[in-house]
Amino acid sequence: MEIDYTNIKVIGFDADDTLWVNETYFRDAELEFSKLMAAYETANKIDQELFKRQIENLPLYGYGIKGFILSMVEIALELSNNSIGNETIAAILNLGKAMLNKPVELLDGVEEVLKTLSQDYRLIVVTKGDLLDQERKLEKSGLLKYFHHIEVVSDKQEANYSNLLNHLDIKPSEFLMIGNSLKSDILPLINIKAQAIHVPFHTTWIHEQVVPSKPEHQKFNTIHSLLEVLPILNKRLKTQKNDL
Amino acid sequence: MEIDYTNIKVIGFDADDTLWVNETYFRDAELEFSKLMAAYETANKIDQELFKRQIENLPLYGYGIKGFILSMVEIALELSNNSIGNETIAAILNLGKAMLNKPVELLDGVEEVLKTLSQDYRLIVVTKGDLLDQERKLEKSGLLKYFHHIEVVSDKQEANYSNLLNHLDIKPSEFLMIGNSLKSDILPLINIKAQAIHVPFHTTWIHEQVVPSKPEHQKFNTIHSLLEVLPILNKRLKTQKNDL
Repeated sequence: MEIDYTNIKVIGFDADDTLWVNETYFRDAELEFSKLMAAYETANKIDQELFKRQIENLPLYGYGIKGFILSMVEIALELSNNSIGNETIAAILNLGKAMLNKPVELLDGVEEVLKTLSQDYRLIVVTKGDLLDQERKLEKSGLLKYFHHIEVVSDKQEANYSNLLNHLDIKPSEFLMIGNSLKSDILPLINIKAQAIHVPFHTTWIHEQVVPSKPEHQKFNTIHSLLEVLPILNKRLKTQKNDL
Repeated sequence: MEIDYTNIKVIGFDADDTLWVNETYFRDAELEFSKLMAAYETANKIDQELFKRQIENLPLYGYGIKGFILSMVEIALELSNNSIGNETIAAILNLGKAMLNKPVELLDGVEEVLKTLSQDYRLIVVTKGDLLDQERKLEKSGLLKYFHHIEVVSDKQEANYSNLLNHLDIKPSEFLMIGNSLKSDILPLINIKAQAIHVPFHTTWIHEQVVPSKPEHQKFNTIHSLLEVLPILNKRLKTQKNDL
């Protein structure tokens, strides 16, 4: 799609499932959880109940692993009618600790793209979730050196982005956001007249799934790997000699 | 103590137990927890084990209520040798939700002091803990209008403060931090050549307790109510007509 990116000065990156794998670990943990609870319910019912409870608890717990685990414990107690064994509760807590300790697995081309773009743009990270967990992942990722600013926000709605751009003194027309979630990384930006590029990840949490209207859809590009952002911005990988 | 504050342009406030009550709610929850566990151990032993586990989990969970509750569940399983009832686990989860839902109870004089100081200084909040929970408390407090910037940090060590001042373009010599924790709000600031005023709260978490050396102690003032910060800075309450 022909969209003009010549005004862009600052590029914001989502982190989870844009720079590194994240959702996969949640799906794996849910699979483990449905195995732990298999005596009480079907995997499908367990998934549904856990999802519902997460959404109910979101205003109180926010995004992130700790709230996810607390919701799991609640559902374990309820689906078992308060007959779940203590060993299962302990296993759920350990699922959470294992998630928090996971290594950071960068997605394809991330380091090269950041390295290339950081020469012509100011790069920032805009991520939601748990502050400590996100800081730890950025640290582990080795990517901190490419970013001028890291912002961990409690949610990614239009107002969160407007406040951030205002605070960092960035005009919406100069800002491009790149991320995997239409709901959190793309549509709010289109609505505040900034730009966005969508890089879907193979797994999206149901809570993040939306269908954009056709006019909205004409205002952003969708790519299948972060590497495709370079030709769209007329940049070449600095490490390659020839055409991309 | 005669300390010169004439260079100060920006004042940072800690939030929990400086602007509003916080530690009291943790102590109340611990008391409830020791009652729930009374069949297994003495209150003293329960307190000690919970404290140790919180510190062990701190690198993984960080500060805040969700990590506190997850540590409580772990200790309940362990002190009971995996024989704790599901109702008790549910009661622990509810303790956490009740804490997250607590109203914000401002400490004495907070609103008047912020109102007065905001006329002559840029005021910011520097708080550690859970991002969403701190944002919610600030929102509920009605104090947001007095602050130019809110920073939720994952820890309050010298480097965290240096990075923040750097990012906000504030010289250490122009920055005064006010807070209840010697370890988190006072000593790191003295060490980076900024200023600090200590307002102890009646309860301090053991993890925050330190004894400053004598030379350190001569570099900051200690006051007993936030209102005393005004005469120290040669300000008068705008709402009062006469002397303070």
